[in-house]
Amino acid sequence: MKPPIDFYFDFTSPYAYIASEWVDALAARHGRTVRWHAILLGAAFQAAGVTSPLDTPVKRDYSLRDIRRSARFEGLPYRQPERFPFSSLQAARVFWWLHDSPGHGPDAAAAWARAGLRAYFTRGLMLDEPAGLRTLAAECGLDVRAAEAACADAAVKARLKSANEQAIAAGVFGTPFFVVDGEPFWGNDRKAQIERWLARGPF
Amino acid sequence: MKPPIDFYFDFTSPYAYIASEWVDALAARHGRTVRWHAILLGAAFQAAGVTSPLDTPVKRDYSLRDIRRSARFEGLPYRQPERFPFSSLQAARVFWWLHDSPGHGPDAAAAWARAGLRAYFTRGLMLDEPAGLRTLAAECGLDVRAAEAACADAAVKARLKSANEQAIAAGVFGTPFFVVDGEPFWGNDRKAQIERWLARGPF
Repeated sequence: MKPPIDFYFDFTSPYAYIASEWVDALAARHGRTVRWHAILLGAAFQAAGVTSPLDTPVKRDYSLRDIRRSARFEGLPYRQPERFPFSSLQAARVFWWLHDSPGHGPDAAAAWARAGLRAYFTRGLMLDEPAGLRTLAAECGLDVRAAEAACADAAVKARLKSANEQAIAAGVFGTPFFVVDGEPFWGNDRKAQIERWLARGPF
Repeated sequence: MKPPIDFYFDFTSPYAYIASEWVDALAARHGRTVRWHAILLGAAFQAAGVTSPLDTPVKRDYSLRDIRRSARFEGLPYRQPERFPFSSLQAARVFWWLHDSPGHGPDAAAAWARAGLRAYFTRGLMLDEPAGLRTLAAECGLDVRAAEAACADAAVKARLKSANEQAIAAGVFGTPFFVVDGEPFWGNDRKAQIERWLARGPF
């Protein structure tokens, strides 16, 4: 069994949304699975001393254009959310609650992640608003009250914190970030390199 | 005749080196030519309020690894120069001197650019040292003394300054930077998107 691909994302990262739509299929074509890691990009930025491209007007304008184009390039729907970025804290906590809870697990967490990224980036569902979180939880067939309770659970909070720390220790300074056989790849635009690595091994 | 592709580069940009090795062939396959623009990345960074990825240790480590891997991905030789980055002022001035001088012209300038990028990134030839600049000028079949004189020429200095200003006005905040039919593409990793644009038009 080949080792899984580690996939780090933040619910508010548009390039992570794009990658979230291809990473599982790409991995599966090469006999791999994907280990999803919800993190908070702000923490990774801060640890690395990196600023967001959204902080500089010229780069922000380009990025917003490039994001839409990159989604079209992958044949994906994309609608720029009016409020962007948003606080992905609650969505990430629900992710780790699902990930660790016996009745759910990593697959349910990944399904929540895919649904959340798609909901925010195609129809502007705000996961930092109680109504938005409840809507998504219901759409995912979750116990809505349990999902809301998880957001305030100390153990879940601690789990997200340690996930951030693990990501930072692994060298993550942006999302999407992939680690394949110990090799780090940053960005949706490393898809072709990841694909070659999976197909032919290190290059 | 389809409009040319504008290609902005800095002699000290490794991703621009990689792109410099494919941009002409890619353009030619789609009936296009390339207009090369030597610029100083520092000026563009400053105007945009952008910092270099080399300024943050975590991102620097990743970038140096990614650069080598990206070169291998394109099948290109790459040797990390010991002194990196370097001041590309003189190399860029020679570029614009060639570009505008009746005996040479844009093609000679592009040949100088390709040769300079390759010399620095494959054998560490330092174009900010008189010996390095002279070596490259001789290899390019140029009048070595005229090339050196161009570096101190007020008109050439002004030309580089206006090239930087034009690039900044065009929205350039990094290199390589491409403008195709008015559409901006930043980065060696936008090759596939540029290719699709050239093949099928806007997407």
